[in-house]
Amino acid sequence: LPPPSPPPREQPIVSCLVCLDSAGTIKETSRTLCSTVCGHVFCSTCLEEAVKRKKQCPVCRKKLTKKQYHPLFI
Amino acid sequence: LPPPSPPPREQPIVSCLVCLDSAGTIKETSRTLCSTVCGHVFCSTCLEEAVKRKKQCPVCRKKLTKKQYHPLFI
Ligand SMILES: [Zn+2]
Ligand SMILES: [Zn+2]
Ligand SMILES: [Zn+2]
Ligand SMILES: [Zn+2]
Repeated sequence: LPPPSPPPREQPIVSCLVCLDSAGTIKETSRTLCSTVCGHVFCSTCLEEAVKRKKQCPVCRKKLTKKQYHPLFI
Repeated sequence: LPPPSPPPREQPIVSCLVCLDSAGTIKETSRTLCSTVCGHVFCSTCLEEAVKRKKQCPVCRKKLTKKQYHPLFI
C-alpha cells in the first residue's frame, strides 16, 4: 500500500477586498483580478471605481493612479 | 432542512512560478509571496535570486529591478 498522503495545507482563497468576490467568481464574470503596488488585491471593477472616485487604495489609502496597479496572473 | 449549498467554485491555488511552492507553504517557511508589476507571482527567495542574477522576470522576461515587485497580501 502507498503511504498515507500528508494532510492538505491550508491555502488562501484570493478575493477582492471590496466586493469580496473570489478569484474564481471574478474570472467567471469577465473581470480581471488586480493588485496594487501596495500589495492589495481587488477585482478590476472595484479598483477602477476607487481610482476614479477616491484616487487611493480602499485598504491602506495609498495614493493610486493607473500606473500603480496591474493585472495579477494567478 | 436547509436547502443544499451550491457546489464550491474552483479557486486557483497561488504558487511561486519558479519553485512551485504554494502560498500556504511559502508563508509557513517564512518567505513572502510577491508579485512583479508584470503580474507574475513568486516567493521572495526565487524573485530576489532572479533580480540579482538575470534582472528579468523568470516568466515573461520583463526587465526587473527592486522597484518592480512588491509583497502580495493574500
Ligand atoms: Zn470587487
Ligand atoms: Zn493598499
Ligand atoms: Zn519560489
Ligand atoms: Zn513577468
